[in-house]
Amino acid sequence: MTTSDELELVSATKSFGGWLKRYKHHSKVLGCEMIFAIYLPPAAEEQDVPLLWWLSGLTCTDENFMQKAGAHGTAAELGLAIVCPDTSPRGTDLPGEHDSYDFGSGAGFYVNATEAPWNRHFRMYDYVTEELPALVARHFPLNGQQSISGHSMGGHGALVCALKNPERYASVSAFAPIANPTQCPWGEKALGGYLGDDRETWKEWDACELIATGAPAPAEIKVDQGEADNFYQDGQLRPEALEAACKQAGVPLTLRMLPGYDHSYFFIASFIDDHLRYHAHHLRSG
Amino acid sequence: MTTSDELELVSATKSFGGWLKRYKHHSKVLGCEMIFAIYLPPAAEEQDVPLLWWLSGLTCTDENFMQKAGAHGTAAELGLAIVCPDTSPRGTDLPGEHDSYDFGSGAGFYVNATEAPWNRHFRMYDYVTEELPALVARHFPLNGQQSISGHSMGGHGALVCALKNPERYASVSAFAPIANPTQCPWGEKALGGYLGDDRETWKEWDACELIATGAPAPAEIKVDQGEADNFYQDGQLRPEALEAACKQAGVPLTLRMLPGYDHSYFFIASFIDDHLRYHAHHLRSG
Repeated sequence: MTTSDELELVSATKSFGGWLKRYKHHSKVLGCEMIFAIYLPPAAEEQDVPLLWWLSGLTCTDENFMQKAGAHGTAAELGLAIVCPDTSPRGTDLPGEHDSYDFGSGAGFYVNATEAPWNRHFRMYDYVTEELPALVARHFPLNGQQSISGHSMGGHGALVCALKNPERYASVSAFAPIANPTQCPWGEKALGGYLGDDRETWKEWDACELIATGAPAPAEIKVDQGEADNFYQDGQLRPEALEAACKQAGVPLTLRMLPGYDHSYFFIASFIDDHLRYHAHHLRSG
Repeated sequence: MTTSDELELVSATKSFGGWLKRYKHHSKVLGCEMIFAIYLPPAAEEQDVPLLWWLSGLTCTDENFMQKAGAHGTAAELGLAIVCPDTSPRGTDLPGEHDSYDFGSGAGFYVNATEAPWNRHFRMYDYVTEELPALVARHFPLNGQQSISGHSMGGHGALVCALKNPERYASVSAFAPIANPTQCPWGEKALGGYLGDDRETWKEWDACELIATGAPAPAEIKVDQGEADNFYQDGQLRPEALEAACKQAGVPLTLRMLPGYDHSYFFIASFIDDHLRYHAHHLRSG
């Protein structure tokens, strides 16, 4: 249980009686140094606690959610740990990696790339579902119960991770997810770049396609979408496609369309409490 | 009540049922364009509401508190508006203005400078106590009841504003304030630079000195200080001096020394709820 070999502590900050800690580690899966953040509630000093994974959106790091979502107070109350991974490999400096905000660094899309040169490093799916879970299980007082949530690109990631591993997570929720990436500009750029031109290979990374082909959800899926979100209005998010896919397949979904809210962390902060309580409910009964 | 002449809307974001709005305006007092932020709770759509001023610390703008303090939820519940001014004049580009984080831009210290060239623009005290209050009173549904709080340099600002205008504010609180700036390196640099070498002139901008010379507080002063705050440990904040001054003068003070907490917004977020409820109590009974 030593942290010295695998983990280098970057910072430790007391928050709502618990601790926000950031760690650097070498990722074998990604072939680079990575930083992740973990919030440990006060209860973790005395017992093993359940864990919520938070996958962030385009351009984010491990820090955005922890600083802006206002989640620590309720996580402390509920005795819930939260892990925020970064959103892509870092420092790999592949050709074009830093040229755009929606592909490459800060935009790993939680897939395993198959196209060169991306397939050397951009394996964020394996990182967030295999390597990092094993790492945090070795080092922190976690009881093995896990749920997953995320925002935008990270909402897509949370849905895909849960649909591909329904036994792994007690529940899944998302804020403004890219719900149908095979059918929107962000997704077409990312999936085309990481996976190549064969659109058939994209489908295993699309929540709507996974649901249509029979993937079960761990519990009723919870999604919040702001109606004033410009990316929703531009067709990047497609919650209606998710709703249709769930209805067709009989997968339970609670989709809230929230008037006036945009794509920002103020939207997330406004409703994170509902999501934390939803996950805590399923983690307790799981 | 038009906003078109004096105020230019920069952004409007729905948050916890209310609105975070940022405005640009020309400040006559500061001689430059300024941006401030206001959070309007849902209640402000139907009635005039009380207002909490939040003065931020070194390097901050109007945005830090709004993004990181997690205050909107409780402000919405309490029906409390919050205004965050910027921390200095902007764009004035005086010689040396951008050379250090603790003097010049982002470091106005809420004083009226008397030394050239700073006295042309750096009059943040008049800005936050006169010009900006009159401006927001003209444009927003506020009932005239006001309290004030802040962090670090802004905690100093809040204490000084309240002690110089006890009839103006219903209550005053601070997180890790620079409580005795005439006696710490940050204060000596700032007050020396803005006011000149005569230390007697510094005293009217020092909460401890104001209290020692009989300034009354609007209500019991509420101060939180993290014990793991490196600036506290380095002697920049001096809560003990504030405690001694209040005790000597019979000014009521509730000072909490909070083990493990540092100088960050995670500290503020952990305890902002207490401060908002303290202010709401005094604003209601005021």
